[in-house]
Amino acid sequence: MISHPLGAHHDGSGLYVSNSAPELEEVVQVRLRVNKPELPEHVSIRAVFDGEPKMITAHVSHETADHVWFTAELLIRNFTQNYRWLLTGGSYGYRWLNSLGLHVRDVSDAGDFRIVAFPATPTWMSQSVAYQIFPDRFASSGRKYEVPEYFVSREWGQHPEGRSRNTGREYFGGDLWGIAEKLDYLEDLGIDLVYLTPIFPAHSTHRYDSQNFYEVDPLLGGNEALIHLVESAHARGMKVVGDITLNHCGRHHEWFTSALAGDSRTREFFTFDDRLEHGYECWFNVPSLPKFNFHSESLRRKLLTDEDSILRHWLKPPFNLDGWRVDVANMAGRQGETDLTHEIARIARQVVRECGPDKILIAEHFHDVGPDLTGDGWQGGMNYTGVQSPAWAWLSGEEFLTRGNPAVNRMETVSAHEAVAAINDFSARMPWRSRIASWSLLDSHDTARVRSVVGSDERQIAAAGLMFGLPGTPMIFMGDEYGAEGWWGEDSRTTMPWDDIEKLNPTTQQAYRALINLRRTSSALAEGGLQWVAVSDDAIAFIRESVSEKLLFVITRNLTRLELPTWLGSGTTWQQLFGEFSLESTSVTSKVAGTS
Amino acid sequence: MISHPLGAHHDGSGLYVSNSAPELEEVVQVRLRVNKPELPEHVSIRAVFDGEPKMITAHVSHETADHVWFTAELLIRNFTQNYRWLLTGGSYGYRWLNSLGLHVRDVSDAGDFRIVAFPATPTWMSQSVAYQIFPDRFASSGRKYEVPEYFVSREWGQHPEGRSRNTGREYFGGDLWGIAEKLDYLEDLGIDLVYLTPIFPAHSTHRYDSQNFYEVDPLLGGNEALIHLVESAHARGMKVVGDITLNHCGRHHEWFTSALAGDSRTREFFTFDDRLEHGYECWFNVPSLPKFNFHSESLRRKLLTDEDSILRHWLKPPFNLDGWRVDVANMAGRQGETDLTHEIARIARQVVRECGPDKILIAEHFHDVGPDLTGDGWQGGMNYTGVQSPAWAWLSGEEFLTRGNPAVNRMETVSAHEAVAAINDFSARMPWRSRIASWSLLDSHDTARVRSVVGSDERQIAAAGLMFGLPGTPMIFMGDEYGAEGWWGEDSRTTMPWDDIEKLNPTTQQAYRALINLRRTSSALAEGGLQWVAVSDDAIAFIRESVSEKLLFVITRNLTRLELPTWLGSGTTWQQLFGEFSLESTSVTSKVAGTS
Repeated sequence: MISHPLGAHHDGSGLYVSNSAPELEEVVQVRLRVNKPELPEHVSIRAVFDGEPKMITAHVSHETADHVWFTAELLIRNFTQNYRWLLTGGSYGYRWLNSLGLHVRDVSDAGDFRIVAFPATPTWMSQSVAYQIFPDRFASSGRKYEVPEYFVSREWGQHPEGRSRNTGREYFGGDLWGIAEKLDYLEDLGIDLVYLTPIFPAHSTHRYDSQNFYEVDPLLGGNEALIHLVESAHARGMKVVGDITLNHCGRHHEWFTSALAGDSRTREFFTFDDRLEHGYECWFNVPSLPKFNFHSESLRRKLLTDEDSILRHWLKPPFNLDGWRVDVANMAGRQGETDLTHEIARIARQVVRECGPDKILIAEHFHDVGPDLTGDGWQGGMNYTGVQSPAWAWLSGEEFLTRGNPAVNRMETVSAHEAVAAINDFSARMPWRSRIASWSLLDSHDTARVRSVVGSDERQIAAAGLMFGLPGTPMIFMGDEYGAEGWWGEDSRTTMPWDDIEKLNPTTQQAYRALINLRRTSSALAEGGLQWVAVSDDAIAFIRESVSEKLLFVITRNLTRLELPTWLGSGTTWQQLFGEFSLESTSVTSKVAGTS
Repeated sequence: MISHPLGAHHDGSGLYVSNSAPELEEVVQVRLRVNKPELPEHVSIRAVFDGEPKMITAHVSHETADHVWFTAELLIRNFTQNYRWLLTGGSYGYRWLNSLGLHVRDVSDAGDFRIVAFPATPTWMSQSVAYQIFPDRFASSGRKYEVPEYFVSREWGQHPEGRSRNTGREYFGGDLWGIAEKLDYLEDLGIDLVYLTPIFPAHSTHRYDSQNFYEVDPLLGGNEALIHLVESAHARGMKVVGDITLNHCGRHHEWFTSALAGDSRTREFFTFDDRLEHGYECWFNVPSLPKFNFHSESLRRKLLTDEDSILRHWLKPPFNLDGWRVDVANMAGRQGETDLTHEIARIARQVVRECGPDKILIAEHFHDVGPDLTGDGWQGGMNYTGVQSPAWAWLSGEEFLTRGNPAVNRMETVSAHEAVAAINDFSARMPWRSRIASWSLLDSHDTARVRSVVGSDERQIAAAGLMFGLPGTPMIFMGDEYGAEGWWGEDSRTTMPWDDIEKLNPTTQQAYRALINLRRTSSALAEGGLQWVAVSDDAIAFIRESVSEKLLFVITRNLTRLELPTWLGSGTTWQQLFGEFSLESTSVTSKVAGTS
């Protein structure tokens, strides 16, 4: 059901939807493109209004040499307005078209297209290329700080011990001043969005156990260094996004220590219960991370809504962060009988919007983020399941497969058919605009490195082709651009080898630079639709297309021939932009990105 | 992904789940059955707790000659507790098992198994065979009533005009006394649940435009006739369920006429807005059906929560209805920016439970009822999409296909693969217990008749095999048992031909009686799990299995051979219960229901 020889297509992008952020009661034009000469006789949309489906006839609105376009008027009756197409007669018989493809059988609403009637997402997000920095490990300015006794000092370039009694306490000495010094490097690479993992004081060097949300860790250079970093980045046209733990704080946070001491004002921020192992709710039963209780109005004010709430504090001058990545957003507000996640996301979105219309909120989410992207909360998510997971599953190499824990880790590589089915499965359930505002990533500080997973230049570049080619904002974990390795989260938190970096895996580096450049200059990649063209076991071909530009991606894991549908070639001349290219009649033999 | 040669299986039934209605914080044992000799090396469940997935190891709990059973302890942390299985190593490589089957790729949570921590559904519902009566057309006691001038009187046995200026006003004179006189017929047929479409006074003979919720229409015999009917039914061990329009009333209802006249007490029950075509919100813009406004607390009290609310009034003595089918439950409470449907369902469920622990609430829903079956509201739905729709799509005959409106109606018959995929798609998103409490139906007063759709004894019996065989309460629309015909809703609302009924399509009648008898006496059909065994274009084989009983269904649309998996035969002797039967080694040649 992924691609169809007839190639009728619709998605949520500008070619097909006249307004992706309408108001309630607005009428939006939705369009279907059908390839000549095989046409349906009748085209309609089925929209669900107030819980009841209704058929609306579509009419031919224009024709080109190759295509017929049908248009229907869709009333936006509900905040989430879902719809799908019905094509009958002619070459189509009886076919539903939803975000999963064409179907001869009835399909559930789960795959319907969705338009949401909430304020638009800032457009810069989907135009960016993001770069994740783990501040302790990216760059040191050489400044000396007083290192607390609970940290274990390491030499720059040493490999982290990882799984040991020092886990989380290894200190390499990177700081924000150091990051600012390396903005040249990032700018040269083509980065325009820097995402910093937490920068608040903590008892770990990952700093997800914040002990004070109102101060930049002095070990990172303190507030002054952050102001300098953000100003320097902004001067280059780069954005900087922070990392906020709305689910928990560290056990050394004053709120928690005072609550433990019996302070009723802060005690309600947490859930104390003697029946629990540690006496209070904490993240996955880890006692250093006490979980917030969002039934507390006072907590909500401090975190979210107060004039100088934590959320607001860092988005305002003099700090001016451009938004937040929200740590474990999938858990924040969820606890037993309580599920306040969507409400918290809605409030947080409102607060962030008040700080500036261009500020963003991205949810960390390791599984199935779609149902949490309702359109009025987090603008996007970290799209592990829609990008990393299928890329790994399709491209993983032998060494990775044999190293995992066989009880839970993947031990089988899948075909491209399965990878594309997974991409569709996870992506179909989010509104289009949430998808393009989500972060496409191949790894992070929480996972193995893509390089270790796939094992070669060639396969890392294929994976990067998915990350840069699929809808969403590509996010590079620092070091991936030179092929850094790591087999699990802690193991991947390596320092940047500044002295040698140019010599490391130059083929990968060249490819990343070329793909970043392509991504930065392409409207099709920033906001264009996605149409699957052809899939075999070893190759995936898709088109990204905006109003002004059309790119063809062909990504392979082995050199292969791939049969492309006849409608692809008709009337289009393709120009090579990246990779090896050979498009003869309807087959290709390697990685390609082309444009008309 | 529907069936798998290895046949590992889990579903929500008693063989596999130790308690389908646990409390929060309870631990439920979930079990997986694997066929020897092909075993996985490791089995775990992945459950989502507070929004985060966690792996839990399963252990071998027992073995039989043919099977190995794995058991995991599942903490019910959230009201809707979802989980799936991971089987790795051995013959399984890396496979997820969810309610859609086995998958080598990652899958979204949409197909996860679900256990809901709400009070249990009354067990009688899934043990019943239901029969839908349209009171004006089932049976007349011969009593004469004063027929209002807006009705058009018809002779019993005349075919309804259907689409005409008299639509909805054709009066045939059936009454509740008449139904009571025919309880012998229903009892003999094997029915133990009667569902009556509306019985309140109205300006139509379908009576969905109620003008008074506190009186049985005198044309149907009034309150006295209802009391008599319910008492007579109860005396035979039969239940009676009514039909309530929570979405709207009729425009002649006193609430609406007084609201129109400016009464502020009732005006808030509706939504008046001069910008609307009729000046008020109504069901699909039909002015005779003004829509209720559930923002009105006063309306909520009158409909739902008051001591003598409409919902309660008819469930209490002297009427003692056993529950409600809720008309357009998919729309009730949904209106533009408002979506109160789940809240209304939750309140209604609470009210109905207060009237008696065995009372039920079934939602009308023409599309994708699953997401509205959250477990704390409607106990089940009318499962059009999970039963009627796939049965029609697979079994429809030539005449039906050529009569439809080609712009929207199905013009293609699908394979059994597609039919089973549709059944799974629509069923996977509801908790198991909501599925078995839902009504499996092939048609109703709102649709064409199954007989007209499929066109023959043989195909109607195949369709009935799905209705009686799949999880859910079979519901027969009056007359289907003798093969009544009708091409759309009004056309199907035919009177019962009491004088000739025995002569009509005796093969279909015999099959219905046999299937009803099988259904009434089978624990596997009432509550047993569902395992797909084999599917070809023309045949579907599945097993229903309870702790004490195992039935094999093989349903074909053409005589065919069907390859059955080797694990099916091992150690099992099958006994013919219904239809032609030929199970030689691993193939069969016709409709079969067998048991071990």
